[in-house]
Amino acid sequence: MKLTSAGRILAPDPMKSHTEYLTFHTKKRRDLVHLTPTLEPILARSGIAEGFMLVSAMHITAGVFVNDNESGLHADIWEWLERLAPSGPDYKHHRTGEDNGDAHLKSILVHHEVIVPITKGRMDLGPWQQVFYAEFDGQRDKRMVIKIIGE
Amino acid sequence: MKLTSAGRILAPDPMKSHTEYLTFHTKKRRDLVHLTPTLEPILARSGIAEGFMLVSAMHITAGVFVNDNESGLHADIWEWLERLAPSGPDYKHHRTGEDNGDAHLKSILVHHEVIVPITKGRMDLGPWQQVFYAEFDGQRDKRMVIKIIGE
Amino acid sequence: MKLTSAGRILAPDPMKSHTEYLTFHTKKRRDLVHLTPTLEPILARSGIAEGFMLVSAMHITAGVFVNDNESGLHADIWEWLERLAPSGPDYKHHRTGEDNGDAHLKSILVHHEVIVPITKGRMDLGPWQQVFYAEFDGQRDKRMVIKIIGE
Repeated sequence: MKLTSAGRILAPDPMKSHTEYLTFHTKKRRDLVHLTPTLEPILARSGIAEGFMLVSAMHITAGVFVNDNESGLHADIWEWLERLAPSGPDYKHHRTGEDNGDAHLKSILVHHEVIVPITKGRMDLGPWQQVFYAEFDGQRDKRMVIKIIGE
Repeated sequence: MKLTSAGRILAPDPMKSHTEYLTFHTKKRRDLVHLTPTLEPILARSGIAEGFMLVSAMHITAGVFVNDNESGLHADIWEWLERLAPSGPDYKHHRTGEDNGDAHLKSILVHHEVIVPITKGRMDLGPWQQVFYAEFDGQRDKRMVIKIIGE
Repeated sequence: MKLTSAGRILAPDPMKSHTEYLTFHTKKRRDLVHLTPTLEPILARSGIAEGFMLVSAMHITAGVFVNDNESGLHADIWEWLERLAPSGPDYKHHRTGEDNGDAHLKSILVHHEVIVPITKGRMDLGPWQQVFYAEFDGQRDKRMVIKIIGE
């Protein structure tokens, strides 16, 4: 509760929201982009100290996840995704002229969004947690929405 | 900050929330329901312009995901789910009398909820993004909660 | 809109947030911890009646999911996770000296967080929904953040 110098009650801070969009155009068809360094200035611009940051791909052939920024692990992740949701010619989705059936399945597997808690004006992540954009069908413009709500 | 005509500070709009429940009863045991057309009027009723919409199954044998509304892809998704989390008699869960062990695993794989960002009163989805309810053990009433918070 | 007995406009309740941290140290390397009984008093302490509770692991070798509290199913889940993301010596991540490559993949598969809707001061879960912490590389301190925002 804030008071003026005359003791009158000031209105509390209302909920705030802040929205930005990012565009990625990866050179490789499949690629990981480390997002954390891009998210921190967005949070700073929001002025929000306590709340949630949604980091969400706006395409159905991309994912967002939180894990370690370690190149060996990233190679393991790609091998694993290819084993569980392999690329190949045999998808019924390809009757539409597309050739990216595996990218849709990889997006469902990894998920297309995460929520990052915001505490005391910072992304409240553990010491090894980093946010990644996973491109499963790139070489073209792909959009992402970052939306923060809080106070 | 809103002022009255006399220049007095009005209280800011507080955070709002809006909650609705849906019930599905699919004719088939496994089925997809395209939710986006059902979610839009719920958002309109909420009066919320900026915030998050949680779309969450209230059962442990169902999922919610965002992807393409394309029938060939949907067939691919069902084949893929059956390959990664097959139905069958060999689940220890079946000792309880249930026969839906695969439905629990499919729910964990797909996840039971998504967050849709709400911007300027609209679901802030990419051009191909649609929200789906995935029923893994239907032919009975299953509930879902839609909760929107924001301003 | 609230009015005083003299008809003056009171400020609306602002958005509230509440954050707590939990630490787990499982005796087994891989284990499930039923979180719901731990989350309920955190919600009570928050004083929040309508909003979202984020339950999020702060490590990249752990998960959080919602499913049934049934021991046979839990055995099925572990067998299934081991089949889809097996432990083994062949991960490139192990060149760093780690031996937990599978734990990272299991974390991506299960996901590291869920959102629980809060309605009328209660976790708005279905009758069989329980929240679990999934430890994939324990026997050491691992942290989790619980953050509730709402009104």
